Amino acid sequence: MKVIILKPIKEIADQLGLKDDVLYPYGHYIAKIDHRFLKSLENREDGKLILVTAVTPTPAGEGKTTTSIGLSMSLNRIGKKSIVTLREPSLGPTLGLKGGATGGGRSRVLPSDEINLHFTGDMHAVASAHNLLAAVLDSHIKHGNELKIDITRVFWKRTMDMNDRALRSIVIGLGGSANGFPREDSFIITAASEVMAVLALSENMKDLKERLGKIIVALNTDRKIVRVSDLGIQGAMAVLLKDAINPNLVQTTEGTPALIHCGPFANIAHGTNSIIATKMAMKLSEYTVTEAGFGADLGAEKFIDFVSRVGGFYPNAAVLVATVRALKYHGGADLKNIHEENLEALKEGFKNLRVHLENLRKFNLPVVVALNRFITDTEKEIAYVVKECEKLGVRVAVSEVFEKGSEGGVELAKAVTEAVKDVKPVYLYEMNDPVEKKIEILAKEIYRAGRVEFSDTAKNALKFIKKHGFDELPVIVAKTPKSISHDPSLRGAPEGYTFVVSDLFVSAGAGFVVALSGDINLMPGLPERPNALNMDVDDSGNIVGVS
Amino acid sequence: MKVIILKPIKEIADQLGLKDDVLYPYGHYIAKIDHRFLKSLENREDGKLILVTAVTPTPAGEGKTTTSIGLSMSLNRIGKKSIVTLREPSLGPTLGLKGGATGGGRSRVLPSDEINLHFTGDMHAVASAHNLLAAVLDSHIKHGNELKIDITRVFWKRTMDMNDRALRSIVIGLGGSANGFPREDSFIITAASEVMAVLALSENMKDLKERLGKIIVALNTDRKIVRVSDLGIQGAMAVLLKDAINPNLVQTTEGTPALIHCGPFANIAHGTNSIIATKMAMKLSEYTVTEAGFGADLGAEKFIDFVSRVGGFYPNAAVLVATVRALKYHGGADLKNIHEENLEALKEGFKNLRVHLENLRKFNLPVVVALNRFITDTEKEIAYVVKECEKLGVRVAVSEVFEKGSEGGVELAKAVTEAVKDVKPVYLYEMNDPVEKKIEILAKEIYRAGRVEFSDTAKNALKFIKKHGFDELPVIVAKTPKSISHDPSLRGAPEGYTFVVSDLFVSAGAGFVVALSGDINLMPGLPERPNALNMDVDDSGNIVGVS
Repeated sequence: MKVIILKPIKEIADQLGLKDDVLYPYGHYIAKIDHRFLKSLENREDGKLILVTAVTPTPAGEGKTTTSIGLSMSLNRIGKKSIVTLREPSLGPTLGLKGGATGGGRSRVLPSDEINLHFTGDMHAVASAHNLLAAVLDSHIKHGNELKIDITRVFWKRTMDMNDRALRSIVIGLGGSANGFPREDSFIITAASEVMAVLALSENMKDLKERLGKIIVALNTDRKIVRVSDLGIQGAMAVLLKDAINPNLVQTTEGTPALIHCGPFANIAHGTNSIIATKMAMKLSEYTVTEAGFGADLGAEKFIDFVSRVGGFYPNAAVLVATVRALKYHGGADLKNIHEENLEALKEGFKNLRVHLENLRKFNLPVVVALNRFITDTEKEIAYVVKECEKLGVRVAVSEVFEKGSEGGVELAKAVTEAVKDVKPVYLYEMNDPVEKKIEILAKEIYRAGRVEFSDTAKNALKFIKKHGFDELPVIVAKTPKSISHDPSLRGAPEGYTFVVSDLFVSAGAGFVVALSGDINLMPGLPERPNALNMDVDDSGNIVGVS
Repeated sequence: MKVIILKPIKEIADQLGLKDDVLYPYGHYIAKIDHRFLKSLENREDGKLILVTAVTPTPAGEGKTTTSIGLSMSLNRIGKKSIVTLREPSLGPTLGLKGGATGGGRSRVLPSDEINLHFTGDMHAVASAHNLLAAVLDSHIKHGNELKIDITRVFWKRTMDMNDRALRSIVIGLGGSANGFPREDSFIITAASEVMAVLALSENMKDLKERLGKIIVALNTDRKIVRVSDLGIQGAMAVLLKDAINPNLVQTTEGTPALIHCGPFANIAHGTNSIIATKMAMKLSEYTVTEAGFGADLGAEKFIDFVSRVGGFYPNAAVLVATVRALKYHGGADLKNIHEENLEALKEGFKNLRVHLENLRKFNLPVVVALNRFITDTEKEIAYVVKECEKLGVRVAVSEVFEKGSEGGVELAKAVTEAVKDVKPVYLYEMNDPVEKKIEILAKEIYRAGRVEFSDTAKNALKFIKKHGFDELPVIVAKTPKSISHDPSLRGAPEGYTFVVSDLFVSAGAGFVVALSGDINLMPGLPERPNALNMDVDDSGNIVGVS
């Protein structure tokens, strides 16, 4: 393997015109950029924004992060200044099943071990702010409960950046009155914390504090909403997040700049890096390549209908990452035979791509399909996808950025530069549409359901939402990423089915209503042999098993 | 208040001869020093080591940290190169009752807000390594339990760096088989984690991994010991600690160097900064001023009998910090009247100082009493303490480093430079003394008990210790810091009482047996009005309420 010599991060920063006074180094290859620097760039023109999304992924993932990094490197290669903006990896999956989340092969962000481990401490800061709130809340209850918090209606959980299934359902406050009141509780993984969503959406410290203050933590015994501001703890939470609000600057395997900042989930939250990082990248470069989580039904829809509206930007093109293996999987092929040529399955599974493409076109977006090539893909399979894309009038580029770095993405980069345009924004729903209507629009237009059904729990939640004035919030649908539908077993292009909304809750700090369809597990577990067992570090500091 | 201009940390590092390749900056004013750098200093002579300890503290603390910082600055002022080495603050107390732990007045370590908040992430890294082990352990049980772990005999708790009393006693693993087996559990604050003790004691990565591997996590159904190495997770834990093993360099209010690294408790652990930091400071300066936790009965005894033996060093002098108010408190004065002149109480409470002085002399140490002056102290009170110290043949220096910085500690610094000598080490017990005997020696020689009583639980624990070959480990006594005895209500100089050992457990990774006397709370709670309520940050990043 080629040894990569990292540039000092100061050099990367210099190229972007970042001076020492807005830069906080974390070692020699990572730096935080003061978020207030964005304000000084106000008058600059924005660069182009490229949204990287994907077909419905298989459990192995389809290389969206790798393609995003590779595309940004390729744009630089063809003479366009480009920054890639990504989410921060979570320790839980890194130690658990999935390993790191810093791209692969010759398209990675570096130093990958550091990024995959504690990085600059943002995840830990989010966890601290989250858990401070939980501790203050239970302490308030114990010390007289002036706010009359109903201990059977506490919504705020605790958090840990770990895959720890034993903490999914717990009872706390046992052991007598010195320890407070026993009640049911739960730990969620830090990426699922509303504090993470809030941090990723905030424009500045003032906005952050306001959003934190609005977070709903419980109902009181009069069924009134209790917020963080009632506990008076938003200031301390913001203090704990004072460094985490600053985007992190690193480099790709080819020494081009990357901003990696925040990591909200793409089901119960919006699933993209911070608005501050995206906006900063758009001010600092001609092209900003940003990745949205999961498939286009989740990440891309939320990016456009929600994130873009909050951030005041809109993508100039979308890149739809597809793999032959994912399309075969959606056409019914078994995962274990996924590397064998199977044109029948490919043909059937291509429908999945078509749905995502149609969806993206509803947003008025020019689309480029990035076919992420694997060595097991046959020429016939590649040719089939290319031909079918052409039939649909969508530009397709075979990407080999994993194997070849920027050289493998030149075609894709060129296609993107040719595709970009100033897009007149189209949103699928209006903010003053009631929540039910918003959900119905998403279910039918994006998830291709025939009808929507609300459970009794969901109906009660809708009443609560109307009663408390949350009906004009945008909707974030929390459903499986494994299918366009809410049912993970429905591969390919399901349609006409009944989309079931099981429950809803309000993330008032983040500013959205979450509509749950099916069970969303907010605390993953470790597999029988977790990735942690492969990790080690020697006396010279060499690490194995992380990235 | 005087505005302090911080020097860039590179400048502080330059003064110590630290080159860029061993330095990892964290912002402009904090840096980690590669722990491997110590190895390259092997052939240098060690500087003098000054152990700062205290009389039995009142709840407000007696200014040990402030005195340590001030003494080090004063040594620099009189032309002696000095580094102060301290423990890292814990977020729990900072957000809770106590506020920050970075000294006070004109004798502080800076940047104090950063040091008091997440600093360089060491606490979070310790928590991650600790909780990874907990998650892997419960995951192992769920996935077939090959090691036959007895779920009623799991010793390893979970951890959080927060004051969260609701997590003291919990039930985990509820909700059905997907979540594992329900069992009782508990969260301890991160400073109390054995991982913290292990990190503070490790010489290098190899030593760290070996110590982590030895940690006892449970018994199996055959009553055999299950260790971390049986779960195979010591490598991943070390990976999570790869940066935390490096000491943190900061500066004092007068721009002199400070190393702040690790923060183990002084009751259930040894209560001093890392051995790596102390050894590094001794190689880099003429004087190393190091602080041990709580009073001399806890911190100093453990530093000498345990830490010094592990580290292969020995103090050249001890500084015993005392305050008029603490002595009055020990003489029966009420906390609320502590600022009023009370020579009767002072006379009675002086006995506490005498006991600690006698104890320190048992270790063959030259002692200097640092009388930490408060503005409410009267001349008569000061004169009394000075006179009584003279009677006991101990050098006493009035310290005003809080008010005056290094100027206020010149007398103390001179006294210390005159007191230091090459001390022939004296340890109170031999390693091959049985654990009972070690405890009896400590109880009688240091805590001044008449006799020692072991509860039935403790007797069983002693059998376990003998059976499994831990009888030759050193003993760390976990007792109240509020009294020389095990009973917090016994102020002054209790003696002849019965010292009760309630339980014992083995910290096999840290390499000691903990003897519990009374209830030691390993998870503090928040007060009715936590310090967090005073914290805020404005749009310009100005922080209030932390330090």
